[in-house]
This record gives sequence, C-alpha cells and structure tokens, in this order.
Amino acid sequence: MSVIDALAARLRSELGSGQVLTDRQQLRTYECDGLAQYKVVPALVVLPRSAAQTAAVVRACAEAKVPFVARGSGTGLSGGALPHAEGVLIVTAQLRSIVSLDPADERATVQPGVINLQVSEAVRDFGYYYAPDPSSQQICSIGGNVAENSGGAHCLKYGFTTNHVTGIEMVTPAGDLVRLGGAAPDTPGYDLLGAFVGSEGTLGIATEVTVRLTRLPETVRTLLAAFHSTDQAGAATSAIIAAGVVPAAIEMMDALAIEAAEAAVHCGYPAGADAVLVVDLDGPSAEVRSQFDEVTRLCAEHGAFETRVAADDEERALIWRGRKSAFAAVGRISPDYIVQDGVIPRTALPEMLRRIAAVATEHGVRVANVFHAGDGNLHPLVLFDDAVPGEAARAEAVSGAILDLCVEFGGSITGEHGVGADKTRFMPRMFTDDDLDTMQLLRCAFDPFALANPGKVFPTPRLCGERPGRHQGAHPLQVAGVAEVF
Amino acid sequence: MSVIDALAARLRSELGSGQVLTDRQQLRTYECDGLAQYKVVPALVVLPRSAAQTAAVVRACAEAKVPFVARGSGTGLSGGALPHAEGVLIVTAQLRSIVSLDPADERATVQPGVINLQVSEAVRDFGYYYAPDPSSQQICSIGGNVAENSGGAHCLKYGFTTNHVTGIEMVTPAGDLVRLGGAAPDTPGYDLLGAFVGSEGTLGIATEVTVRLTRLPETVRTLLAAFHSTDQAGAATSAIIAAGVVPAAIEMMDALAIEAAEAAVHCGYPAGADAVLVVDLDGPSAEVRSQFDEVTRLCAEHGAFETRVAADDEERALIWRGRKSAFAAVGRISPDYIVQDGVIPRTALPEMLRRIAAVATEHGVRVANVFHAGDGNLHPLVLFDDAVPGEAARAEAVSGAILDLCVEFGGSITGEHGVGADKTRFMPRMFTDDDLDTMQLLRCAFDPFALANPGKVFPTPRLCGERPGRHQGAHPLQVAGVAEVF
Repeated sequence: MSVIDALAARLRSELGSGQVLTDRQQLRTYECDGLAQYKVVPALVVLPRSAAQTAAVVRACAEAKVPFVARGSGTGLSGGALPHAEGVLIVTAQLRSIVSLDPADERATVQPGVINLQVSEAVRDFGYYYAPDPSSQQICSIGGNVAENSGGAHCLKYGFTTNHVTGIEMVTPAGDLVRLGGAAPDTPGYDLLGAFVGSEGTLGIATEVTVRLTRLPETVRTLLAAFHSTDQAGAATSAIIAAGVVPAAIEMMDALAIEAAEAAVHCGYPAGADAVLVVDLDGPSAEVRSQFDEVTRLCAEHGAFETRVAADDEERALIWRGRKSAFAAVGRISPDYIVQDGVIPRTALPEMLRRIAAVATEHGVRVANVFHAGDGNLHPLVLFDDAVPGEAARAEAVSGAILDLCVEFGGSITGEHGVGADKTRFMPRMFTDDDLDTMQLLRCAFDPFALANPGKVFPTPRLCGERPGRHQGAHPLQVAGVAEVF
Repeated sequence: MSVIDALAARLRSELGSGQVLTDRQQLRTYECDGLAQYKVVPALVVLPRSAAQTAAVVRACAEAKVPFVARGSGTGLSGGALPHAEGVLIVTAQLRSIVSLDPADERATVQPGVINLQVSEAVRDFGYYYAPDPSSQQICSIGGNVAENSGGAHCLKYGFTTNHVTGIEMVTPAGDLVRLGGAAPDTPGYDLLGAFVGSEGTLGIATEVTVRLTRLPETVRTLLAAFHSTDQAGAATSAIIAAGVVPAAIEMMDALAIEAAEAAVHCGYPAGADAVLVVDLDGPSAEVRSQFDEVTRLCAEHGAFETRVAADDEERALIWRGRKSAFAAVGRISPDYIVQDGVIPRTALPEMLRRIAAVATEHGVRVANVFHAGDGNLHPLVLFDDAVPGEAARAEAVSGAILDLCVEFGGSITGEHGVGADKTRFMPRMFTDDDLDTMQLLRCAFDPFALANPGKVFPTPRLCGERPGRHQGAHPLQVAGVAEVF
C-alpha cells in the first residue's frame, strides 16, 4: 500500500469517508486556484469539519512525512493554494461557523472557511463591519485572507488583514493546536500572530480567527475625477494625501483600463479621460463634507477637467462598477492578460508609469494600469494573445520587468496577492541571501521537514539545518551534524 | 585572562578604548533601567558608534558565548534592559543620527539611539510628527520603543510602535546585519519585522529604524469631564467608542489618582470628582467640532457633572499636566508604589475596578487607578510604605492579583511596558505550555545559545533543542541527539 493510500485509509477512519476524496475527477476540481496558469492535481483532498479534525490531518501528514497545502475558497491570485502532486490538499470550506460575535468589544471570532463578506453581514445590524475588502470578498474565505494578508481598495485608510486580526487558533506543521494573540490589542511575547498572517500556509493552518470589527461610517461619498494624463492624476493623489486627508480609497485607472471597462460595463466615465481617480470618503458627515470640498478643489488644481459626485447609492455603484470590473474587462480588449501586483512609493507613481510605458513599447506589448493609487499598490494588466507565437513570452518579460522597477523604486514585488508559487523567483531580487536565510530560520523552526505548503514563497528550497552562517562549526544543528541527516 | 577580559581587549582594539567601559563605578551607572527594584551590574559596557560596530560587538559575544543585553535610554518599566552579571551591556545611545527624512512618502529613517520626540521635531516643519508617544517621549529612544513595542496615551487612535515601523536593519544574535521590512506598507515573506518589534531584545538589536510619519492634525481639542464614579466614566467611555467616535486619547483617573495629582501639580480638577476623563479629539476642524459636541453630550448623558473645554494650548497643557504627573504624583501620598500595567476588554472596566477595590481592601492596601480607558489599558498604582513590615509583600500580592484579573477577563498582563525581567513568572498564567513552546521555536531559531537578553520575557529557561513535542523521535534536533549536546 502506498504512503498516500495508507494516509487516505487512516483519515477515512478518523474523519469519515465522505471527507476524504481520492477520485481523480474530484481531485481535478482542486487543481488550481485563481491563478489558473499553474495546475497540479493533488494526491488527496481532505475536508475537515473541526479544528480537531484539521489537527488530526496535519498530524497524520507529519507522521507520514507527506506535504500538505491548505486551501480556502481558492480565489488567490499567486498560486498560494496550488496543490502538491504527492501531497494532501486540506480544504477549510466546511469550517464555516461564526463562533462568536462581540460588537461591544468590537471583536468577532470565526472559522477559517467563513466568507469575508459574511462577517460584515453578521454584524451590520449592530452598526459594524469587517474592513478588509479584497475584490473577491463575496467568495474569498477569512482563512485565505489570513494566509495571504489580503488587502483591498479600502486598505489605504483601514490597513490590511494583519491590522484586523487580533488572535488565531492554528495547527502547527507538527499537528499541535495552539493560540497566537487574543482579543486584547497587544499581547506579550513574540508577535507570532503577525508573522503567521501573510505566511501563505507555510507555518500552519488557522482553525479559528478573531477579527476586529469596524464601526460603519455615518456617511460614504464617492467622487470620480477625470484627467488628461496619469501624471495629473498621480499629482492630485499626492496632493490629497499631503493635505492630511485620508480617503477610504483612491483608485486610479489609465486610458486603456478605462477603455476596457467601458467596453465591458458601460460605466459612462467622462469622454476623453486619459486617467480617472475614484475617491471614497467615509466617516462622520461633517468631516466627509469638508474633506470632500478639499478633494474636489485639489483635483481641479491638478488638472481634473470633470468631477462627478455620486448622488445616491446607485450612482456610487455605477462609478465603482467601472473600477471593479477592470480586471475582467480587459478580456474585452485582449484575449489573454497577466494581472500584476506590485508596490512603489506613492510619489514615484508618475515616473513609474512612464517607465512601464517605455518597457511595454520596447516589447511591443500593451499594459493597462489600474491601481490603489493612495498607497502605491499597482495592478498593471499586461495584455497578450497566446495564439500569436512569442507574445506570451514578451508579456511575461514585461510583467517581470515591472516587478524589477518596483524593487528599483524601493517598493515591493507584491502588494496584496502574495508570492505563492508565482513570484518565488523574484524574492532574491528584493531580498539578500542573508535576509532570506533569516526568514528561513522561522520556517525551519516551525516546519523542519518543509511539509507545509512546500515550494511556495521561498526561492531555492534550502534544507533546514543546511544554512551556513556565523554559527558555523558552533551552531547546534551543525555541531550534531544534522545537515547531513536529512 | 578571563573570557570577559579577553572580550574587552578585543572590543577595545576593534572599536577604540573609549567605547568600552570596565571601571566598576562606570558600570554601576547602568545597573538598572526605569524599574529600579532590580539591579545587576554588567560585566562590560560597550557603546558602539555604527551598525557595523554593533554587529562586531554581537559577533564577538556570539563567538565567546557571552550573553548581551541592549539598552537605549534605560527608561523601560519592566526591567527589559536589566544587565546580565556575566554579560555585555550594549548601549545604543551613540547611534543617534537621523539617517533620512522623506515627508513626501511619510517615512523617516533613524538610528536606534534617536530620542522619540526628536523624530517629531525633525519633521514638524513639514507638517508631520511621529505618533507613538510614551510618557517618557522626551528621553526614551526609538530603539527602546521598538524593543518594547511602546504605546502611549494616543495609541487608541494611532496604534502602537509596531503600527508605525515599516522596516529595520538589525544585528541577529549571530552577529549578521540583516534588513526586515522596508519602506513599502507591506512586504512579502514572513512578517519578521512585526515579530521583532516588541521582542524585548531577545531576537537581536535594531541598528536602523524606518518609521511612518503622521500628518499633524489640523485641530486638537481637549475636554475634561468630571463624574461621581468610575462606573459612570467607564460607561461614558464605552458610549463614546460605540458612537463611532475615535478620540486620539481617552484617559481616566480615579479619586485617589486625582488627589495625588492635585497635591503634586495643582491641576485644579473639579472638586468632588471621583473620576475624570481627559479626552483629546484631533483631525480636521469640521470633524473635531462635531465629534466634540457628541462627546460632551455622551459624557453628560452618563453622569458628568462638569465638563471643561481647554480654550487654548495653555489650558490644554494644564488638563494634561494632571494626567501626565499622576505616576510621579502618587509619591506625594505614598512613600512607595508599584506601577502596574495590564489590559482588559474596555467593556469590563467597571467590573474590573470593583474587583481591584475588593482585592485592595482585602489586603489593606490602597490602589490609585490611571488608565488609557479607550483601549482598556490599566495602570493601577499600588501604594505602600516599605518601612512598614509586610506592606511591600501585600502590595506585591495585590499587584499580582490585578494581573490575574486581567487574564481572567480575557486581557493581557502588559499593555505597553513589556514583560522584561519583571513579569516572566506571569507568562504561564496567560499562555499554555504549548503556546510558550511555540514562541520558543522562534527564539531558538534566532538565538540557539540564548545569548540575547537571556532571562527576560520567558519564564523557565527551557534550552533550545530540549522541547518535547509531536516531532519527538523524528524532530531533526532530536534525531541528532542535540538535546544532549548543549
């Protein structure tokens, strides 16, 4: 009996046979996440129904030395939940209970399979919501949000997932159930909770998540400003921030992104706009009113030739529909495209756009730009036609060059989609070997056999214990010759 | 030649003799930090002048297996910078350069010895400041703030140090200089930066810190509300937060704390007040104005019998003088006192105060209460007279019982002062052995020989490699029998 067959038999007896999938057709359902360019069929899929069952699965994997990958809703865009061909895919979709709601202390505790938007829906009547809002919030899970430290358009004002998670229960790669953090705003000891959030499944699996609830704002107002150039829109963004206004969101789209959105959803953005800003202001009415006047004035000062204000929720939704549809909409103007995700300092935005345009021209590829302009998080969409020989390669080259530019400007190779399977090769462009070795210290401490989501995040699969360094000859791992052991 | 003498000789030759102190009288200057109840004279004090020198000192310690403790300004209140009798105290006071200011991207990079308030002063003319404001901000160092994840009265709105540090350069316990984080709001890989902030010197020494700058608010208004009971003041606090107002600060003082402050600084708080709230509102004028009316109304609704508004900066300073002097002021009404630091859910405040009063009465000890009420961070001041036999022990018992209550209410044994040397024994009351073992994984990964600030934060000094667990018999450390090696 193979290792996987033995594991399947054990898990069937421990969890019940309905929760263990081995049928090839069923396994294929899970072969990729939101980044469909990578596909791997897992050896086994398990759907635990409790924290204890999740721990049992991981413990069985640890004992059999079989790799495991956790998967929430599978909406990630970096291949973080890409299965391992000889491993177990642990799907958290059945861990979908809301454990407790405590609006008075602004906390909710949920299982990892709970959908992002369900948290907000559960507390809306108390006047609260859960702030992090990835575009996929109607389907993505809290567990996946924690793994990838998900962001969204409103992270400019409200921060990322890591700023809204105060405690978790998790299964370590050894199969132990432990708690990190708690309900208090700050706990003593190491902030392992912060390290776990965004660790992309390489440190274990969250089985319960305590999140901070945010008071629903008294007012939300949305404004659309049209400019003749992205330079103008970028300058307006910097001026708004410099004025001390922190909008809930400042989104930018360039001419090509606008063209795509118009073709797809007929959002009716001002004709002739080569760039638009979508600005959300929220908070107490008095504050929003005065900030609104200031934002309008600053946009006009920096060249906005038309400014529209949403008069009601319907008009608000229409303005946002153009922005939210942008990724899918480029399908209307290009058969294939790569969604890139990078970060630059906000002030580098105009320069960065010129550099992206130059690289695109050089390779004969079109790039549509959509971004969370307020915090410098770019989502360039690199367009290509896979049917034309060489185009995919050129698009890849442009996409990679954009990340190099992000690093050159002192930014980051990912803002919110994560490294996953997709960007491991870019990590050395951002970090030195010493920096990466330092991260590896943590991974090896939690997961000495590299069973938790192996092959993700980190570039070369350096073995634990193999790390050379100043402790060489004296490091306990090496004193004992462990480097040779495994 | 002893190990320490050899180390001193090596460091003198590498750093220059003026930067290495061995004279007993000079060493005694460093025998304690802000928590003077513990005193240990270090074997050696070294004052590096650069990151490279700091790395050289740590490397020399690592090679000689000599423990080291980092010290900033020495204002910490948990004994985190308490020296090690056989170790080196590494003082960062001479690392005091501002490396770069970048107000346009809202970042500043400073060396660890730079004083907290100096950062704000350096960027004030650009319209910015550095938000975390411990009471000691005129003398405490950024490096110390990072080590202890320092807070302050305005953390309610602005968060702790960890929310304002985006990148560091640090020396690992092996003596390597590495970078964690960067200028971007979020970087890929593990958030080791977040784990480092608040690690109290047990993971290494920061040699450069990049912090987020915050826009100076257009307006700050301060209000003092007087109540007949702490119950009323607690209910008013909850009502303010529930209304969706986030004041920059909500501070509470009880009758005994008010009495002490009056005796010390004659702050002129309303006569007959058994509790006062000091509320700071900051932001755009329009917002502050409307919030101000709401806060005033909510205080009145919950029993405030007098509300004062600071008409100018002078009156603002007077209101705050009472609060800021409170710790020192209790010296006027008691020869000795313990400053406690704990956290509870905000809504538990009235119940917690009754329980503290009951414990105090039971032990015949007086407790003055001062707290950051908005985020449930208590600073009970336990009064005693060391000259009266048994009083110190009773005060210690009350002080400890308060922490037990914090844990019972689902809070934390420290809000902002850290665990240091003082609270290691309380860690097991808050965390299970599994939780603590999980933290130990990180410490051992960074510092297998426990040279970085040993004896702090964690209770039993469990040796690295000694940790039992599910990997037992299979964990590489144990496969190789390392547990026996050291």
